[in-house]
Amino acid sequence: MPPHVVNSHVVYTALDLVGTFAFAISGAVAARQRRLDLFGIAAVAFTVACGGGIVRDVCIGAVPPAGLSNWRYLAASLCAAALTILAYPKIRRLRHSVLLFDAIGLGLFAVSGAQKALTYGHSAELAILLGIVSAVGGGVMRDVMLSRVPAILEREIYASAALLGAVIQVGLHYAGWSNAWTPWLATLACVTVRLASLYFGWRLPVFGEARENGVRERP
Amino acid sequence: MPPHVVNSHVVYTALDLVGTFAFAISGAVAARQRRLDLFGIAAVAFTVACGGGIVRDVCIGAVPPAGLSNWRYLAASLCAAALTILAYPKIRRLRHSVLLFDAIGLGLFAVSGAQKALTYGHSAELAILLGIVSAVGGGVMRDVMLSRVPAILEREIYASAALLGAVIQVGLHYAGWSNAWTPWLATLACVTVRLASLYFGWRLPVFGEARENGVRERP
Amino acid sequence: MPPHVVNSHVVYTALDLVGTFAFAISGAVAARQRRLDLFGIAAVAFTVACGGGIVRDVCIGAVPPAGLSNWRYLAASLCAAALTILAYPKIRRLRHSVLLFDAIGLGLFAVSGAQKALTYGHSAELAILLGIVSAVGGGVMRDVMLSRVPAILEREIYASAALLGAVIQVGLHYAGWSNAWTPWLATLACVTVRLASLYFGWRLPVFGEARENGVRERP
Repeated sequence: MPPHVVNSHVVYTALDLVGTFAFAISGAVAARQRRLDLFGIAAVAFTVACGGGIVRDVCIGAVPPAGLSNWRYLAASLCAAALTILAYPKIRRLRHSVLLFDAIGLGLFAVSGAQKALTYGHSAELAILLGIVSAVGGGVMRDVMLSRVPAILEREIYASAALLGAVIQVGLHYAGWSNAWTPWLATLACVTVRLASLYFGWRLPVFGEARENGVRERP
Repeated sequence: MPPHVVNSHVVYTALDLVGTFAFAISGAVAARQRRLDLFGIAAVAFTVACGGGIVRDVCIGAVPPAGLSNWRYLAASLCAAALTILAYPKIRRLRHSVLLFDAIGLGLFAVSGAQKALTYGHSAELAILLGIVSAVGGGVMRDVMLSRVPAILEREIYASAALLGAVIQVGLHYAGWSNAWTPWLATLACVTVRLASLYFGWRLPVFGEARENGVRERP
Repeated sequence: MPPHVVNSHVVYTALDLVGTFAFAISGAVAARQRRLDLFGIAAVAFTVACGGGIVRDVCIGAVPPAGLSNWRYLAASLCAAALTILAYPKIRRLRHSVLLFDAIGLGLFAVSGAQKALTYGHSAELAILLGIVSAVGGGVMRDVMLSRVPAILEREIYASAALLGAVIQVGLHYAGWSNAWTPWLATLACVTVRLASLYFGWRLPVFGEARENGVRERP
């Protein structure tokens, strides 16, 4: 995260770790349900929390990636894995809180990912794409590692909410608004859309019949 | 793409976008058949079209990758996704054209990927490997995201045709031939082999019985 | 591999190639059992042998990655693939040797991966994480490409042994021990734990019931 966006704001840093923690909880829960072992749970938790940011950092040349070199991300992921192992029934009861924190993480990662790309001097298009990657990349890796089609590709408003957050942040940045305000507005928009889609059951359209075959796929 | 290979040739740029578009169509069709939603179709289309080139660029330090920073690739992918959603029955009827464009894309990506690595001053081995990665990496990612074994690993002459194109391009480059001609020759060789393998049903050999088990795999 | 760790020691270089070869054998065997074709076997063998190191090199900015630019790794992988195709019944009888070489490869890759990150001036945490990635990354990619849950996440002491080797190497490095000795000690510890876990059937704990569902996963 660029210093003037994150580190100077204690609140922002705290929220960033809350997002990391929420993402790691979602990874640890999925890994535990698939009966992975101790190491597997920790590895999937860390991957969900930091995978997207690592890809973003590699793509903009910010190596080593913050997710690997900043110990706070690893610590937050391991805490989430430990909590999921030790207090699983409690985590189950907290499912609504987990979804809430996950939505906050989604918004924060989309916005701070886009902003980091802008801070490194890249274009609006790249910033928006990498904002989405930061927010949803870890979840895609989790699903790929658990050998299933990534959930964000077939259900719910999730990546679309990240897209909205990244677009607002980049748009306001180019419009010259102060960086003191824009990340909060953009994050709020993303979180609101995500939570509203959960509450109202909004989904993106799916097309065609279940059993269409025709165009031979590229092998 | 290095300026003297691609940008100075309008034809080459146009063909590069044709290849991107054909690859994106193949991704969008596969995603639609798996009933992914609107975002999923766009994401898989973009991944097939640009995934291989992004890995290549990250491996040679050309960051940010052209697939993310050059808006034409994203635009071509989104057009292909939109077309697949809106005109699916037509796309089905055009299956032979899609295979043709896909073969052209394969040849162009293999050759321009190898040439880009050479232009950045890397060795012949690296150029050949990255030519293959550019051409088939996106298709592998598509299959991994759709939770199936990558088709290029079990059927048909596909990656092998990309290998041929990359080898010819690198060989002629080292033989001192002019860059004005070699990409066309190498691409033509790759496309010809690919189309001939489709027409004649050529396949690479598979070995052993279906139910062999013996060596314990590395976990 | 940093010069003073690897290249100056002929023994070490030889062992590094032995590890590459053993990893490639494991990849080629898995690919052959899944009935991939000639290209698929070579591609999976190379991925298992070099995938982890390539990710490590990209993350520390050592591009192009050694696994792609040093022809010895490709050559060792292709030899392993050819041997698996031509002499499969012999490979089956050598299963215990393959496991032994694989354990040696695990130790060497974990330790040399961690040491390479230290040589590039990175922190202890990053060195340990990248040591694990170097050692197990290729195996994870193999399982993802073959569309199954990575074995290291659900069985046996494997990544944990790599963690031990990386931690010992980094710890002794910070304690000021000579690099002439520490890689051997750290590798020996990793290999010993790995082989003992195979012999005694040690496993990491798995938690919960097979059919727990509760926390809604993050999509």
